[in-house]
Amino acid sequence: MHTALDLTGVFVFGISGALMAIRHDFDIVGIAILAVITALGGGILRDLILGDTPPLAFAEWKYLAVALASAAVAAVAHPELGRIPRTLLLFDAAGLGLFCVAGTVKALDFGLAPIAAVLLGVTTAVGGGVARDVIARQTPELVRRDSELYAVPALAGAIGVAVAWELEAYEPLFGAIVSVAVFGTRALALHRHWRAPTAFRR
Amino acid sequence: MHTALDLTGVFVFGISGALMAIRHDFDIVGIAILAVITALGGGILRDLILGDTPPLAFAEWKYLAVALASAAVAAVAHPELGRIPRTLLLFDAAGLGLFCVAGTVKALDFGLAPIAAVLLGVTTAVGGGVARDVIARQTPELVRRDSELYAVPALAGAIGVAVAWELEAYEPLFGAIVSVAVFGTRALALHRHWRAPTAFRR
Amino acid sequence: MHTALDLTGVFVFGISGALMAIRHDFDIVGIAILAVITALGGGILRDLILGDTPPLAFAEWKYLAVALASAAVAAVAHPELGRIPRTLLLFDAAGLGLFCVAGTVKALDFGLAPIAAVLLGVTTAVGGGVARDVIARQTPELVRRDSELYAVPALAGAIGVAVAWELEAYEPLFGAIVSVAVFGTRALALHRHWRAPTAFRR
Repeated sequence: MHTALDLTGVFVFGISGALMAIRHDFDIVGIAILAVITALGGGILRDLILGDTPPLAFAEWKYLAVALASAAVAAVAHPELGRIPRTLLLFDAAGLGLFCVAGTVKALDFGLAPIAAVLLGVTTAVGGGVARDVIARQTPELVRRDSELYAVPALAGAIGVAVAWELEAYEPLFGAIVSVAVFGTRALALHRHWRAPTAFRR
Repeated sequence: MHTALDLTGVFVFGISGALMAIRHDFDIVGIAILAVITALGGGILRDLILGDTPPLAFAEWKYLAVALASAAVAAVAHPELGRIPRTLLLFDAAGLGLFCVAGTVKALDFGLAPIAAVLLGVTTAVGGGVARDVIARQTPELVRRDSELYAVPALAGAIGVAVAWELEAYEPLFGAIVSVAVFGTRALALHRHWRAPTAFRR
Repeated sequence: MHTALDLTGVFVFGISGALMAIRHDFDIVGIAILAVITALGGGILRDLILGDTPPLAFAEWKYLAVALASAAVAAVAHPELGRIPRTLLLFDAAGLGLFCVAGTVKALDFGLAPIAAVLLGVTTAVGGGVARDVIARQTPELVRRDSELYAVPALAGAIGVAVAWELEAYEPLFGAIVSVAVFGTRALALHRHWRAPTAFRR
């Protein structure tokens, strides 16, 4: 179940990376590379932090295969994908929801304390997107000025997972629901332009 | 004692990250995130390189708490902080001094050779600031053209610690003094515009 | 033999980092730092992913010494080096050829599956250059629009090494030949402006 969450996250993040590459007119090699970095970056960072080496993305060929498949899909279907408004950010939002759950669960499974697991869940969720944006020389969505709520839904999702785990009430189905809720919140935030306040000004 | 050095370094680097975020008009979530990345980035990199996983920043909740506290302080007090000239760089300089000592000592403690420990001390000291600058899309202070001496004081401090350690004369108080000396040298370099020469031209 | 490949890769990547720093008018400290990051970045990433900590760049002082030597050579000889067209990219191409072999061989030696070893070989080959370009605020050569074939020769070289290894026909001399072939292909691609196609457009 969590492998399925994880691989779905890889696929949707890969699409977001490939779309970013296409927007910047990268060639097909650049599209594949940015898709792979976006798709696998967050999970590699998570596994390095947990000391689980080599990271799953290297230990299991399925991860690379799914990331490359996402690049191929985006390279062929980008005109259709482009018709959905803010497509790139919607795929990114789906990855955010899936990876905050997968990251938090793996961290708890490795025995991290709940706070640490939440921090690692959020890191997993945002890591690939930051790598994508830095390499494409965009301000990371994570910190972009005027950006809609991004880390907050991922944080809430990670906290939900950690609380359920501590209560011994966590189940994979709950994880899937949290993923969808995080995605939905982020998508709604994009649609309604929900923003966090800025620093206190006098 | 070294935990105190380390946590003080986390706090001051966190302030520098938060001030950078405020300067770029990030919202409060972006301020918290950039503070956390700046505060914890150098130490996480150090611990990954040492193979000490999960890194202290994940293993001990105090690190995250201090980083978030620094963001809160900066978000509230930034108008006052802004009155000190070059505030951001002064807080960064304090972190540089504290982390070059904490990084070198931890590396020596883990049995690294003196040269490797010096390299890792400098890496620890500059890592969080580079992450901050890359994410905020600034040229890293570490390599910025016309920048005042930055890595050099950290390098000198790390060498001082490694030499004292090899002579079996290292004491925590000595480490604290080195931290202050590195901070003072960098602050003076900022004030007096001390610069390194550029490449040989004919 | 592989240590020689690895150290030669460190040297040529170091030259490319130093030349990038000189082009951006960094001072001599910035030149040394960018040379060291470019020279050691790919190998450090490789070793972290393999869980071989501390990375060779920290465990063996020769790596740092060679990286610093490359910075010194470039700082002195840059007017001569500048007379060769696209010098920076030619040194980068040499590093690409050497590191894709060294990275793939080390990964296979650590028991990674062939596909994972190829992925890690390419990661090793491109890692230092990406770090160099991100810190100098250039679009990474790896994904740059209109760039000549870059990852493709490294990928072909890594696949060649993995296939030979699986056939138990790998020898160090073969690795050296692959390195030269990767360098030659990339150099020819630069000269003839060979490019990968862009995404499918309708």
